[in-house]
Amino acid sequence: MSGLIPEPSQYGLLTDLYQLTMSACYVGEGLAQKPASFELFTRRLPPEFGYLVAMGLEQALDYLENFCFTAEQIKALQNTGIFTHAPDTFWQLLAEGRFTGDLWAVPEGTVVFANEPILRVEAPLWQAQIVETYLLNTINYQTLIATRAARLRDTAGPEAVLLEFGTRRAFSPQAALWAARAAIAAGLDGTSNVQAALQLGQKPVGTMAHALVMAISALEGEEDEAFTAFSRYFPQAPLLIDTYDTVAAAGRLSQAVEQGQRQVTGVRLDSGDLVTLSQQVQALLPEVPIFASGDLDEWEIARLQTAGACLQGYGIGTRLVTGQPVNGVYKLVEIDGVPTMKQSSNKATYPGRKQIFRAPDGDRLALMTESLPAGTYPLLQPLMRQGQRCLPSTDLKQIRQRTTEQVQALPPETRAITNPVPWNVSISEPLQDLRQSLLTA
Amino acid sequence: MSGLIPEPSQYGLLTDLYQLTMSACYVGEGLAQKPASFELFTRRLPPEFGYLVAMGLEQALDYLENFCFTAEQIKALQNTGIFTHAPDTFWQLLAEGRFTGDLWAVPEGTVVFANEPILRVEAPLWQAQIVETYLLNTINYQTLIATRAARLRDTAGPEAVLLEFGTRRAFSPQAALWAARAAIAAGLDGTSNVQAALQLGQKPVGTMAHALVMAISALEGEEDEAFTAFSRYFPQAPLLIDTYDTVAAAGRLSQAVEQGQRQVTGVRLDSGDLVTLSQQVQALLPEVPIFASGDLDEWEIARLQTAGACLQGYGIGTRLVTGQPVNGVYKLVEIDGVPTMKQSSNKATYPGRKQIFRAPDGDRLALMTESLPAGTYPLLQPLMRQGQRCLPSTDLKQIRQRTTEQVQALPPETRAITNPVPWNVSISEPLQDLRQSLLTA
Repeated sequence: MSGLIPEPSQYGLLTDLYQLTMSACYVGEGLAQKPASFELFTRRLPPEFGYLVAMGLEQALDYLENFCFTAEQIKALQNTGIFTHAPDTFWQLLAEGRFTGDLWAVPEGTVVFANEPILRVEAPLWQAQIVETYLLNTINYQTLIATRAARLRDTAGPEAVLLEFGTRRAFSPQAALWAARAAIAAGLDGTSNVQAALQLGQKPVGTMAHALVMAISALEGEEDEAFTAFSRYFPQAPLLIDTYDTVAAAGRLSQAVEQGQRQVTGVRLDSGDLVTLSQQVQALLPEVPIFASGDLDEWEIARLQTAGACLQGYGIGTRLVTGQPVNGVYKLVEIDGVPTMKQSSNKATYPGRKQIFRAPDGDRLALMTESLPAGTYPLLQPLMRQGQRCLPSTDLKQIRQRTTEQVQALPPETRAITNPVPWNVSISEPLQDLRQSLLTA
Repeated sequence: MSGLIPEPSQYGLLTDLYQLTMSACYVGEGLAQKPASFELFTRRLPPEFGYLVAMGLEQALDYLENFCFTAEQIKALQNTGIFTHAPDTFWQLLAEGRFTGDLWAVPEGTVVFANEPILRVEAPLWQAQIVETYLLNTINYQTLIATRAARLRDTAGPEAVLLEFGTRRAFSPQAALWAARAAIAAGLDGTSNVQAALQLGQKPVGTMAHALVMAISALEGEEDEAFTAFSRYFPQAPLLIDTYDTVAAAGRLSQAVEQGQRQVTGVRLDSGDLVTLSQQVQALLPEVPIFASGDLDEWEIARLQTAGACLQGYGIGTRLVTGQPVNGVYKLVEIDGVPTMKQSSNKATYPGRKQIFRAPDGDRLALMTESLPAGTYPLLQPLMRQGQRCLPSTDLKQIRQRTTEQVQALPPETRAITNPVPWNVSISEPLQDLRQSLLTA
């Protein structure tokens, strides 16, 4: 228990308290079974983001399929004393409750923009309410990672090797697993996280650490002993050459290569001035791919490229898996056939069940009931009907291909990692009219 | 499987690939059983941080106690093809391997500074190597959250109600659970995450959401119907009054209170100008505690206080559970009795097994072998001996008390949330001498 591991048996309680208290209120008021539609979207893109890559649906589906409450969980809720005045029928609802609604969503790897729904839940109000917290959790985080991965790939170019090394800095072990998934699905080549790689059907990747150089050189006296030892068992693994003096180490390796004493299949630099060092190392070891690591992100890779660094690969950790979040929200857009919207001063939303119509020159956010404009295709698809999946899982390779195609289809100024130009997203007239009618109601 | 849940049976593989390849190399070189000491610390505090609150040891202990490799996991590693040249005895080591070393650490809730070890692993080299990734993961994240929670408490004052609402924005469900734990242990009053609260022996907390107001007012025509309905089942729950017009809603509630038609035990504001709105709401409902939420952090709370906002409580979400990380590292400090250090240009470390001696006027970072200076006490304690816990778990209340006392003992200028003045941490002469001798060696 002390690992605090979010097991599927806990899915029912992996939510905010108010979702449960509101559901109890819905039961008491006779509203619990009213058909409700909630849409998940971002009000605005994070700073410097021109697009988002939708990700995390597979985990959303897993959650909805396993959503339930055990007898002990219900007992524990009752014992909190919070629900003293809640109607008794609430407990019966929880005990028998499964997710029985529909889920509409854009496929993973789809590029989306502000105000565009990534998913919509259509379900009895109480269910649609409780699932908010977990759905936001999975979509917000994986969409962030996928978008960052797509930006990294777009910046580094199709030939660069991009590896996810963030587990030690990820915000919990599960964050590391989810980050590895989203990163690979959206453009990175591999992850160092062994469990994630094996579970995702990938080969884990990695080099070597300073500890090995330090341990072997402390006991055997020479940095090169560490290289020799490691290459004995892992002849394909890159060598980490910055523990003491990067250029000196590269020079010795170069000599050994020239004298036919050693093969070097790659080196990694993790500290110092990567521009100068990579140039010096490349001059000494011209055939050897050089990998960089250490607080890299898309901006730093762009800077290194502009400054003429000689790098063939990048290990990306901290700055991929942590940082500013994607702030998706989940809002009621229709209840019992009545369109709704939030009108708070600075947080107003678009009402009604919506569809995104995509065309090469831009998107149109419209009502579901509108007919498909010529030359467009709809992005939101039904993934679940009455609690049952109606599409098979997509594999990571397909998601990655979708991501690449969709990002490449955007103009460079929208893909820019600094001051991107917003893409063309229009609001259909029926949607504008509906919004206006509710605002003035 | 598709939930990507980090179960204890996966602990062995929840690591970076290079930890396993290096361990295989150690086996081949006859070094795997050499006694090694690694220390976990931060090279520098995050920007604007004057101290850290150590947290996450309970999950570190859980990991070390459950660390192992199953036959299927070993088979899966072999099937990657990465270990073709690794010595056969490596597999035997994994199959039989448990964590058999010692763990030294500062108690959770201890205030620490740059370069001070939060923990030290003393174990056979291969084990101490593999556990690096998970230990960094748990300490880095929970220490970040605990430190932010302590800063929030210090800023908001002892009387303010501080609630953790971050689950929807946390980086995975497990991140939400760990954040709730660390936040409560270091100064927050509760969490909205039901599973976290129940698992931690706390009462979950919360108010109500816009969805309830929107659903009930869409069906029944009035915002006040939502308030009435919710209060019927949860008379103690604060009402969320900013869905349409905050001041108008407060005015109607005030009238109802005056006319004896209703009790209001609290209100929440989630949008708009919190300073002006809270003042207007307090004028209308002078006895009612006002809670604020919406992108709050310690800086925003300080700003609201300075600007004269009338707020008794804060819901903290996104800006507590996401953002810039604590960048702890885990470095080999001694191998087979030989002190080691990393000498890379900008990342050099302190060698040898260390102790922190704490006195009221400052800390001294020293070698373990030094005797206790008068008026100081040592911070690092043995938590595990030969793979067995030697201290019971500390409960959250004790950790919270320790955090409060230690933070309060620091001068205000070191506790400042902007431009904090570094605390007095000196390096002992023997440690300085050892470092110098290794640098010039």
